[in-house]
Amino acid sequence: MAEISSLGEFGLIARLTDGLAAVNDSTVRAVGDDCAVLRPAPGEDVLVTTDMLLEGPHFDLTYVPLRHLGYKAVAVNLSDIYAMNGRPRQITVGLGISARFTVEHIEELYDGMRLACERYGVDIVGGDTCASRQGLLISITCIGTAAPEAVTGRDGARPTDLIYVSGDLGAAYMGLQLLEREKVASAGQKDFQPDFAGKEYLIERQLKPEPRRDIVEALAAAGVKPTSMIDVSDGLSSELLHICKSSDVGCRIYEDRLPIDYQTAVMAEELNMNLSTAALNGGEDYELLFTVPLTAREAMESVKGVHLIGYITEPDKGAAMITRDGEAELPLRAQGWNPLADPAAPEA
Amino acid sequence: MAEISSLGEFGLIARLTDGLAAVNDSTVRAVGDDCAVLRPAPGEDVLVTTDMLLEGPHFDLTYVPLRHLGYKAVAVNLSDIYAMNGRPRQITVGLGISARFTVEHIEELYDGMRLACERYGVDIVGGDTCASRQGLLISITCIGTAAPEAVTGRDGARPTDLIYVSGDLGAAYMGLQLLEREKVASAGQKDFQPDFAGKEYLIERQLKPEPRRDIVEALAAAGVKPTSMIDVSDGLSSELLHICKSSDVGCRIYEDRLPIDYQTAVMAEELNMNLSTAALNGGEDYELLFTVPLTAREAMESVKGVHLIGYITEPDKGAAMITRDGEAELPLRAQGWNPLADPAAPEA
Repeated sequence: MAEISSLGEFGLIARLTDGLAAVNDSTVRAVGDDCAVLRPAPGEDVLVTTDMLLEGPHFDLTYVPLRHLGYKAVAVNLSDIYAMNGRPRQITVGLGISARFTVEHIEELYDGMRLACERYGVDIVGGDTCASRQGLLISITCIGTAAPEAVTGRDGARPTDLIYVSGDLGAAYMGLQLLEREKVASAGQKDFQPDFAGKEYLIERQLKPEPRRDIVEALAAAGVKPTSMIDVSDGLSSELLHICKSSDVGCRIYEDRLPIDYQTAVMAEELNMNLSTAALNGGEDYELLFTVPLTAREAMESVKGVHLIGYITEPDKGAAMITRDGEAELPLRAQGWNPLADPAAPEA
Repeated sequence: MAEISSLGEFGLIARLTDGLAAVNDSTVRAVGDDCAVLRPAPGEDVLVTTDMLLEGPHFDLTYVPLRHLGYKAVAVNLSDIYAMNGRPRQITVGLGISARFTVEHIEELYDGMRLACERYGVDIVGGDTCASRQGLLISITCIGTAAPEAVTGRDGARPTDLIYVSGDLGAAYMGLQLLEREKVASAGQKDFQPDFAGKEYLIERQLKPEPRRDIVEALAAAGVKPTSMIDVSDGLSSELLHICKSSDVGCRIYEDRLPIDYQTAVMAEELNMNLSTAALNGGEDYELLFTVPLTAREAMESVKGVHLIGYITEPDKGAAMITRDGEAELPLRAQGWNPLADPAAPEA
């Protein structure tokens, strides 16, 4: 195992970025200068998003393999680009690394990042690497492109628009509960074998989310331009409220239409948790939530893997979920994960 | 004083970015969606650079005011854009904030960032804010633009090119030594008044560096396009070696031509340090180091605030400094600050 200080910052970056070849025409210069140089195609807008992942509040290396962490760190950034109806092109990677990490550790992390980049056609074009006093910090900025008329914000939803969400909800949250439970069970035990049988999907959703490029491509193929779109990172409720606020509209969704996987339901039962709450507030699903005009309903039939969950209303109706029995309307609340009120984050 | 968790992430971001108005035509959408949307002028290249600043390894809040820290965090990123002969346009700001910071603290930090952005015509277009377990983390990505033919890398220096550096060297390093000395002197003392009389310039250079937009503009006005350029963040030696390696050339610089301020010299004497070593390896000067063709020498006379310090050679000559007496050639070494071998950074 090699100590990172033996390579120095420039040596480490050279080793990590060795053999990286740009796949995007718009990548003119990548790693190795003061800046990366990009040349978007004429007429294209440039999309920029940034996300930080900190050891502790965001991930626990006792059960998150570094390779998965690298993959996920990239995936969540790509998800933001797709959520604007764009295509991700480049990322820059900032790493803060504490003394307990070796060169091999960081290579594993980078392998995961490179895999996600390869799969989604993204170039690693720059970054910054420095010593951290505590744990691992990852800060990724993703640059994407989109035709100006394709760019989809949170602010275009109109009353009578239909609300769709891709995939299913709550599984990543259940995966996290499962990993935390096995971590507690394994405490102090040597050769502990965690039991994930029948719950592999939950683990996969937590550790290795996939950004929904396929949905963005399917919408384009179907000729449907969403009126608004957002990715589900903090939970469906929170994201729906963002759309309602930005678009100045209200919404109704149906509890019995929330897409939930069988494994999620089983886990909720085991944990004695309300399943709809998990689906609404779980977070980290990285699915796409979007609205389309009522007139696009027929065209939407060719888009696979999405679910019609409700409709947009006038703003004075507020945002609410119609319960399974159709009897009550529960106001939606942003009870998602609050990254600034992490009770497990005391000053060290 | 308001606790940050009382506002939540979205409330904090709304408060920090309140009243921000874009000054660049290329800023189409700023804070408030999954991505910022930028529209560079037709034919312009896009430059991207990213820098992380971590409490501990990079800054010490016992003597760095938060407002200055915010200013500097932006300034060092802008410096990278100018170093490619570009113009900075937008930044995104990632913040990791531990529980000891209040809303007012973060507003102070942001005030400094906004001041730097206003001064250099840059828009804050996005970011990410989360809880950190230890101290303050700042990750800034800057996006700039440049005409493709103006972009200046590290790789274009050719033998006989002249080497210039702007401003003076070593002062920021001396400012750091001074601040550290006064910190030690003040330890445990109430109402300690640090004594910076006659050394204000050193403190200013450390706490509030200015990126050299003026030099980039003066070069353009003089019709000089540098063959290579880099900003001096890790020390002149280290940066010269980057240019030599990327351009496959050698260089000679003259010790007696290194630009050094009077206060830097006095402080070096007080600390019994070699002045040239401080100028070569001090770092954090954020001056521009660049090369121009021999034929540009006359045109360079109209560019104020820069110093001719040497020339580029064939690669087999290596990189060296000719001593003050003209007798010896000392090989240049990258002894600058190694951000991955910080001995003061044990795992917490």
